[in-house]
Amino acid sequence: MATDIPLANLKEPIDFAEYLFTRIKQLGIQSIHGLPGDYNLVTLDYVPKVGLTWAGNVNELNAGYAADGYARVKGAGCVVTTFGVGELSAVNALAGCYSEFVPVAHIVGTPSTRSIRNNMLLHHTLGNGDFNVFANMSKQISCAVANLFEPHDAAQQVDNVLREMMLQSRPVYITVPSDLSSKKVEGERLKTPIDFSYPANDLEKEEYVVDVVLKYLHAAKNPVILVDACAIRHRAVAETNEFVRKSGLPTFCAPMGKGAVDETLPNYGGVYAGDGSNENVREIVESSDLVLSIGAIKSDFNTTGFTYQISQLQTIDFHSNYVRVRWSEYPGIRMNGVLKKVTERMGKLNVSPTPAFSNKVAAVDQGDLNGEITQAWLWPTVGQWLQPHDVVLTETGTANFGIWETRFPKGVVAASQVLWGSIGWSVGACQGAALAAKELGDNRTILFVGDGSFQLGAQEVSTMIRRNLKPIIFCICNDGYTIERFIHGEDAEYNDIQEWKNKELLNVFGADPKKSKTFTVKTKQQLLDLFADKEFSSAPYIQFVELYMPKMDAPKSLAITCEVAAKNNAKQ
Amino acid sequence: MATDIPLANLKEPIDFAEYLFTRIKQLGIQSIHGLPGDYNLVTLDYVPKVGLTWAGNVNELNAGYAADGYARVKGAGCVVTTFGVGELSAVNALAGCYSEFVPVAHIVGTPSTRSIRNNMLLHHTLGNGDFNVFANMSKQISCAVANLFEPHDAAQQVDNVLREMMLQSRPVYITVPSDLSSKKVEGERLKTPIDFSYPANDLEKEEYVVDVVLKYLHAAKNPVILVDACAIRHRAVAETNEFVRKSGLPTFCAPMGKGAVDETLPNYGGVYAGDGSNENVREIVESSDLVLSIGAIKSDFNTTGFTYQISQLQTIDFHSNYVRVRWSEYPGIRMNGVLKKVTERMGKLNVSPTPAFSNKVAAVDQGDLNGEITQAWLWPTVGQWLQPHDVVLTETGTANFGIWETRFPKGVVAASQVLWGSIGWSVGACQGAALAAKELGDNRTILFVGDGSFQLGAQEVSTMIRRNLKPIIFCICNDGYTIERFIHGEDAEYNDIQEWKNKELLNVFGADPKKSKTFTVKTKQQLLDLFADKEFSSAPYIQFVELYMPKMDAPKSLAITCEVAAKNNAKQ
Ligand SMILES: Cc1ncc(C[n+]2csc(CCOP(=O)(O)OP(=O)(O)O)c2C)c(N)n1
Ligand SMILES: Cc1ncc(C[n+]2csc(CCOP(=O)(O)OP(=O)(O)O)c2C)c(N)n1
Ligand SMILES: [Mg+2]
Ligand SMILES: [Mg+2]
Repeated sequence: MATDIPLANLKEPIDFAEYLFTRIKQLGIQSIHGLPGDYNLVTLDYVPKVGLTWAGNVNELNAGYAADGYARVKGAGCVVTTFGVGELSAVNALAGCYSEFVPVAHIVGTPSTRSIRNNMLLHHTLGNGDFNVFANMSKQISCAVANLFEPHDAAQQVDNVLREMMLQSRPVYITVPSDLSSKKVEGERLKTPIDFSYPANDLEKEEYVVDVVLKYLHAAKNPVILVDACAIRHRAVAETNEFVRKSGLPTFCAPMGKGAVDETLPNYGGVYAGDGSNENVREIVESSDLVLSIGAIKSDFNTTGFTYQISQLQTIDFHSNYVRVRWSEYPGIRMNGVLKKVTERMGKLNVSPTPAFSNKVAAVDQGDLNGEITQAWLWPTVGQWLQPHDVVLTETGTANFGIWETRFPKGVVAASQVLWGSIGWSVGACQGAALAAKELGDNRTILFVGDGSFQLGAQEVSTMIRRNLKPIIFCICNDGYTIERFIHGEDAEYNDIQEWKNKELLNVFGADPKKSKTFTVKTKQQLLDLFADKEFSSAPYIQFVELYMPKMDAPKSLAITCEVAAKNNAKQ
Repeated sequence: MATDIPLANLKEPIDFAEYLFTRIKQLGIQSIHGLPGDYNLVTLDYVPKVGLTWAGNVNELNAGYAADGYARVKGAGCVVTTFGVGELSAVNALAGCYSEFVPVAHIVGTPSTRSIRNNMLLHHTLGNGDFNVFANMSKQISCAVANLFEPHDAAQQVDNVLREMMLQSRPVYITVPSDLSSKKVEGERLKTPIDFSYPANDLEKEEYVVDVVLKYLHAAKNPVILVDACAIRHRAVAETNEFVRKSGLPTFCAPMGKGAVDETLPNYGGVYAGDGSNENVREIVESSDLVLSIGAIKSDFNTTGFTYQISQLQTIDFHSNYVRVRWSEYPGIRMNGVLKKVTERMGKLNVSPTPAFSNKVAAVDQGDLNGEITQAWLWPTVGQWLQPHDVVLTETGTANFGIWETRFPKGVVAASQVLWGSIGWSVGACQGAALAAKELGDNRTILFVGDGSFQLGAQEVSTMIRRNLKPIIFCICNDGYTIERFIHGEDAEYNDIQEWKNKELLNVFGADPKKSKTFTVKTKQQLLDLFADKEFSSAPYIQFVELYMPKMDAPKSLAITCEVAAKNNAKQ
């Protein structure tokens, strides 16, 4: 049994679960995702007690996705599950957070310390008396773990892992035995918020690196800036945008970095991803003599199948834990400080005119407006319709490739899982993101999800309804797994899905017909009309749009990526 | 890259994936569960090639549950997922199979051997070049693992793990790199089916144990037989029933063992589970001077919170890997051979009359037939309605406790997760079980699931419709998580759920209104009428019944179990 801390030793005794959730709240988290289970019920009593909201998800995988989506909007998220059955259901969501650098605290209610010490044969165990199996599994996808047992070090351990979570921007795993929640710990600690500001770089080293960067920058004739996911995940968005704005250099995003840069700036030119880029973008980036690459993650789907044509000899990489200039590495140096000084000191750059490029997305042939909606037409059109500060989620499939061809208004938050790519993610993530957006002041939340992916986590729409969230959900109805058809098995049965009456789900899940609306859209004109509808666009309540599109239509970037993926799979 | 086997060295070259699925088929598996993903597409091409059916599930957790349900009916199951995202989504289902001794092969399509060797930064990875993380996780919930890489030993490894799967009755994990599927391996091996018959006990040791058992059995005045889950999972059902029939001894089941014994035998008396048992049953078992316990798993929910009152000094335990007589252990002895010989040699037993007991379930007060359906009334009534060879699934919650109070006709297969207890399981499992039942000859498949649990995996009903399965689904609508309310937080928000129009889902998921039917049942009389409806009971197509029941009504056994669970959670 966990040994109590003598009350006399505590200046401000507080129940451990209250401590834990207060710390969570101090991170800016206002809502907790998850499901109840026998081993976390008492812990959950503290959620309303400290003034947090319980989202109450429909299953744990969706809850994990929701915490992910919430964290992408608010900076951090939290999901609570029960031992074994609950936590393992969520593990894929947490692995996604690990892969994609999203800080989410996974709190797991476990059997009591006494049950664990006695190796009791309890439900939700493997029946072998081993209570560490699940923690061992989660350890591998967490940047820090607190297997709590004793009140003595519980508060300290919580502080440590939450700090790691924020510094590394990755999930942490915290187990709370059922009897620990109500044990007293030191509440006075709460007066000092956890310090998760980044430690400053070594000054001398930083100055050295800044000089090297400036040397190359000043020598370059046609440098460009390329921004990727880690600029967002490692909180360098402000420094990045300052650099982009002040330098005026042609700036592009990798797909995973979409949303990092203010896309209304005249020097922003769209997505660069090797062969998947627009011709003009590609030419500018690949002919540049210096690519200032900020927070790159050069994964297959983020580079259209490794088709970057940029020499390392013409690259400076800025990262959270190192800077690399050509082949010279400067480990232990964080980009934030370096970018700031480079921006301050660069002065007027001596750059030659690059081939003309425009901030506008290339005009698309409108074709027959009464004809079917094509991928090529859809996405630039969507871009036109977006509003400042929208939260836009795109699911793996045609959607997260299509979104490349949009130009975002100011402050749009984009979320998609380009690296982890777990389908179904976007539905749960949309619930969390919409809740976060609501907390931020009712920003619109817009989801684009494929008909295949939607099915995996469809029931989370129920939580959106339950919590009065107001997302606009576009379900791309194209008869199944189009992206997979492009990789292999165009006509294979395994790429087909059961056809659902998707939009009827709002009704089934209990949406008030007066506080919800559904639409079916099959032609371009119908979509234009919908976008022109002020009520629709004001997102007054949850709305679901079935967007019919041709089965074998895909964004160009996706087609190329799939070709490379198929070759990789087969290659000897 | 994987080194090819020179073709000249192979007598009957066959593509590896064809080999793999042929082995699967030889186990009696006719249908494969799972989802496609970029890394398993080529492998999936072999499913129809070897004459197997692709179930095509809606998400991987459900697919894992389905393979579990299928295995419980057909003896073994198989689920195919894709690397990382797919496999981790299913991991909770496989952990359940491990915990509950269900043989399921989890086949995971991974990136190509070349991509792995080159540590490529691929989608569905953690982005750190480590391709072993997920295998390391699954290893902990698998009885054997084959991380395949080279064609040389791939066939041999498959044979080894499938043999372990059948002998240990637990899941195995097999990775198939995308380029391995079409590599040639030795097909001649397929002519010799994998031998998964149990190795015989050491003869001398077995004879010794049989003598000891017979000595105690002959000395006993009022012995009873108590049958539990491992009798089913370790394939000792035939030996057990022979023993029960020939001995005529009063026989009872633990909850997890329900379905193991022919419940129409006059000496079958119902469920024993300590304090949760009927008074009469409890008296007989607890006053017995010798309990012959076959395949026991004494977990909390299987013993009404550890309330067994049976002394080890009056117990003989039969297990798959040991026999224990009082405190004397005989390791390495499998029950099957021992039970067989004991049955053959026991002769006429010298037993005293036990307190009278009847095979019938105690009569229930019918109360007002136009009144609401109570748990106490429901289950014996359900028992009356069941038919021989029905497959009956009950979800964790009021359902899997309620089912204790039924008497099964001959050959009923019961499936529930008393030990692992992951809610949502029963919906996926029902899809798999219904498919298996169809393969066996259109046996009825009947599911009882709580309204809370149903929500976690509801979309798998879509697969049932897609595959023309004909389950009868009873959804117990009692306003949320009743079982949890009994443990803690009776009125807590976290035990509430969003109210769904559950039965509308058939329509949404594309059921043909002429080949499906839905019902709402609120009174006893309505349920009796439904049961009396010949068409309904003939299960001609999928049917969905909303069964309204009071929020705070629970089977007695559940109420007691929850009380103990709450105490355990809090106890210091
Ligand atoms: C959890 C999970 N299972 C399987 C996959 C493999 N997969 C990737 S995309 C996809 C199909 C997506 O289809 P849909 O959502 O309809 O998108 P679209 O048709 O627009 O391409 C599948 C099955 C995955 N990425 N994640
Ligand atoms: C995956 C998973 N998550 C959470 C739990 C905790 N849990 C056990 S039973 C239950 C509620 C079940 O409610 P319902 O299905 O409505 O059953 P009933 O009301 O009949 O008790 C919950 C949340 C669990 N066992 N498994
Ligand atoms: Mg699709
Ligand atoms: Mg319920």
